[in-house]
Amino acid sequence: MESIDKLIANFNKLPGIGIKSAQRLAYHVISMSTADVNALAEALRDVKQRIHFCPICGNYTEDEVCEICANPKRSSETICVVKDARDVSFMERMREYGGRYHVLGGVLSPMDGVGPDKLRIAELLKRVKDEGVKEVILATNPDVEGEATASYIAKLLHDLPVRVTRIAHGIPIGGNLEFVDEMTLFKAIENRREL
Amino acid sequence: MESIDKLIANFNKLPGIGIKSAQRLAYHVISMSTADVNALAEALRDVKQRIHFCPICGNYTEDEVCEICANPKRSSETICVVKDARDVSFMERMREYGGRYHVLGGVLSPMDGVGPDKLRIAELLKRVKDEGVKEVILATNPDVEGEATASYIAKLLHDLPVRVTRIAHGIPIGGNLEFVDEMTLFKAIENRREL
Repeated sequence: MESIDKLIANFNKLPGIGIKSAQRLAYHVISMSTADVNALAEALRDVKQRIHFCPICGNYTEDEVCEICANPKRSSETICVVKDARDVSFMERMREYGGRYHVLGGVLSPMDGVGPDKLRIAELLKRVKDEGVKEVILATNPDVEGEATASYIAKLLHDLPVRVTRIAHGIPIGGNLEFVDEMTLFKAIENRREL
Repeated sequence: MESIDKLIANFNKLPGIGIKSAQRLAYHVISMSTADVNALAEALRDVKQRIHFCPICGNYTEDEVCEICANPKRSSETICVVKDARDVSFMERMREYGGRYHVLGGVLSPMDGVGPDKLRIAELLKRVKDEGVKEVILATNPDVEGEATASYIAKLLHDLPVRVTRIAHGIPIGGNLEFVDEMTLFKAIENRREL
């Protein structure tokens, strides 16, 4: 049946959905109510049509400016720099950070041809100069590319009157020495603090 | 963001998609091309609008009669009885069976109030009488309800001039047609036994 094969192929394109899962989902759709199927189809189109990048910070938004940039209660003195727009929602789960964000749209990766001009680094420098920013927290992932990107941005900000910090790396809360990789252990020892 | 929350909720309703997977899928949709998102939305609607049950065998179809019932090369002398329309596609993966199917639309389950009148058993008896059927292969799952349903149908067919067989227990007890490999299915058909 053409329609079910097409739906299976479309589900199979999604990340983490293998061919078996795609088949199971497609057959499930037949047994769903028409209202539920239409709701899912509409939600897909809606997300794609309504969500775009905030022109200030690069976060996802449905409005002209994202809800964090538009919120006067968020301090404009601190900017947390992250790789992707998704990372903003991960950070926000913490509910403790009261500053703003800046989404780079990736990390430096010479192998993939991603240089500084492909990232929103110039926009970050402009914001630091224009918005009276006092601290830039570099929150790229603690992998090779994330570290390189953080170092690169730190160097660029060096001559500006702004504090530049890096999120701490160490053993996760509830973590276990046995299951932590060597690099994390090394960072945990290196960043040890007085008690 | 309302639209992303709605999409996450809709993904989360699908079987096997937890909240974390739903979030990952929803954010992935933002990064998909508009054409791909529209193709998925259209495929969902299409499946729901175009697929219905074949009036003869109960299989899924987009046409008036399913492609197996409409195929003159498929022998009408053998009917393979399965629980769900999905089971037809599982059996067809084998590519060895040349007969037709009859979908019961469930199995006998007194606990859930499913008696013989809720299943397409009367339709099966009518087909056996009208279509010159020589063999009925009972291919319900080898679990308690599947066995009970097979026994019940075998008893009903006992006085008719038709051979009644049961797929062999090559399929693990408690197993499910969906997760059985093609070779096991082939053996199960090959070693079918009289009831």
